[in-house]
Amino acid sequence: MAITLAHLGPQGTYAEAAASLCAQWWYQQGLGSLVLKPYPSIAQTLQAAASGEAELAIIPVENSTEGSVTVTLDTLWKVDLLRVRQAWVLPISHSLLSRVSAGDIEVIYSHPQALAQCQQQIEARLPHVPQVPTNSTAEAIQRLDEHPAAGAIASRRAAELYQMPIAIEQINDYPDNCTRFWVVSQPRRIYPRTKPCSHTSLAFSLSANQPGALVKALNIFAERTINLSRIESRPTKRSLGEYLFFLDVEANADEEAVQDALQALGEVTETLKLFGSYSIWLASEV
Amino acid sequence: MAITLAHLGPQGTYAEAAASLCAQWWYQQGLGSLVLKPYPSIAQTLQAAASGEAELAIIPVENSTEGSVTVTLDTLWKVDLLRVRQAWVLPISHSLLSRVSAGDIEVIYSHPQALAQCQQQIEARLPHVPQVPTNSTAEAIQRLDEHPAAGAIASRRAAELYQMPIAIEQINDYPDNCTRFWVVSQPRRIYPRTKPCSHTSLAFSLSANQPGALVKALNIFAERTINLSRIESRPTKRSLGEYLFFLDVEANADEEAVQDALQALGEVTETLKLFGSYSIWLASEV
Repeated sequence: MAITLAHLGPQGTYAEAAASLCAQWWYQQGLGSLVLKPYPSIAQTLQAAASGEAELAIIPVENSTEGSVTVTLDTLWKVDLLRVRQAWVLPISHSLLSRVSAGDIEVIYSHPQALAQCQQQIEARLPHVPQVPTNSTAEAIQRLDEHPAAGAIASRRAAELYQMPIAIEQINDYPDNCTRFWVVSQPRRIYPRTKPCSHTSLAFSLSANQPGALVKALNIFAERTINLSRIESRPTKRSLGEYLFFLDVEANADEEAVQDALQALGEVTETLKLFGSYSIWLASEV
Repeated sequence: MAITLAHLGPQGTYAEAAASLCAQWWYQQGLGSLVLKPYPSIAQTLQAAASGEAELAIIPVENSTEGSVTVTLDTLWKVDLLRVRQAWVLPISHSLLSRVSAGDIEVIYSHPQALAQCQQQIEARLPHVPQVPTNSTAEAIQRLDEHPAAGAIASRRAAELYQMPIAIEQINDYPDNCTRFWVVSQPRRIYPRTKPCSHTSLAFSLSANQPGALVKALNIFAERTINLSRIESRPTKRSLGEYLFFLDVEANADEEAVQDALQALGEVTETLKLFGSYSIWLASEV
């Protein structure tokens, strides 16, 4: 039976491009076919995998310009049932799509993340043009039907899918703009591995009013020369000034030093959640 | 001459409520009048203070449910000229405003931060009603004129200002929802102080490929028993996996231990920016 991969839709989003790449990889590895299933939000995409409605979900975690996708981190912490199985890094190149030329565009639609990634270019090339947020880059293109003198920021691939002309190519502020996605599943599902796990992701909360508790937690890794590649704080939502910490470490949780660190970490944290170990794949590897 | 305070507008935003509170405080302290000046975005609000077009600006930094306001941190780092003079913590209570009753609402408009802060309540009480992001909560109310069967999430104060009925009171997911604002100015401007500075904010980048560099930097404060009340990472935007770190410490930069820590920090960081020391005020203190 085919395995279902949930992603943020509709057709033409960057998440769908990541899902297609993952499906292509499965096929190339002789692992069979993945069936892509779009969901209207990232939270619903993750819930689909948590409930078993989809076997897998692929969701954006972090962009090189805009940082963490906070809804992904908050939902993963809350759902408390999903494991990270694989990471994908995709270059993200935005285009300005429109039926009119750039100088005649009266309003620009796009997802807030995409608008933020093009802020300086928009200000330089289309100053004073109002920007209107949408729920996805694909939805921005759909708005062009209502408003012919509008522009939408989306991918070149979406321009082809929706047969929309490109007014400006590569309008993102930073040429190396890229987004990291995670493939997640329920813990008992087996995920194919064709290279060793290089990273482990986890998150923890600390007891309130413990000065120095974070440094103590981070020192556990430093003392064992386990490199942290990322640290992100998120509010506990209980009260201002209380945080959860999300860590990526450059090691496999199977290693003895990591096992040892995780045990020590369990003793200094309030709640500790291990999201699992995985390998990172680049789009160019498929 | 009156002093100008820039804020995110239009009338009825939470930023304008914070600006009004600050102006009220100035007046109560016998410091004279502040003139409020609305700007269309947080980045433009900060630019107004950096350029001297406004003497002061008030901007949201962090919400207890949704976390950091990333555009504030990124712009402060880039502008490189503004100092934090005062912090304000405001309770944020959202209402659902509409001309129709809650059950008849066909679409909900609001700023993405406000929508995110009410996500569970919306899903429970108005499931399947589409949510449309706007540039501010006040703009969401303005959309109700085009679409009478729509709802807008905004403050009770905005409902009064725009004379819009309230369909649901306090629709935020967490009752203790609050937002911290910073008042910023150019460094040479003198800002009134009526209680001692309790916090210092700073940010730094680290040289790439230095394992353990973050722990080393944080240890500088731990060794001097200076408590960190917050740590936030933001991408450098150069490449995925390179970060800036924003720290709030519970001390005044005038203290000898802090001076000493800052000097040590300068030696282990690539770029270090000190945003200044300030005191925190609650809405209930005015």
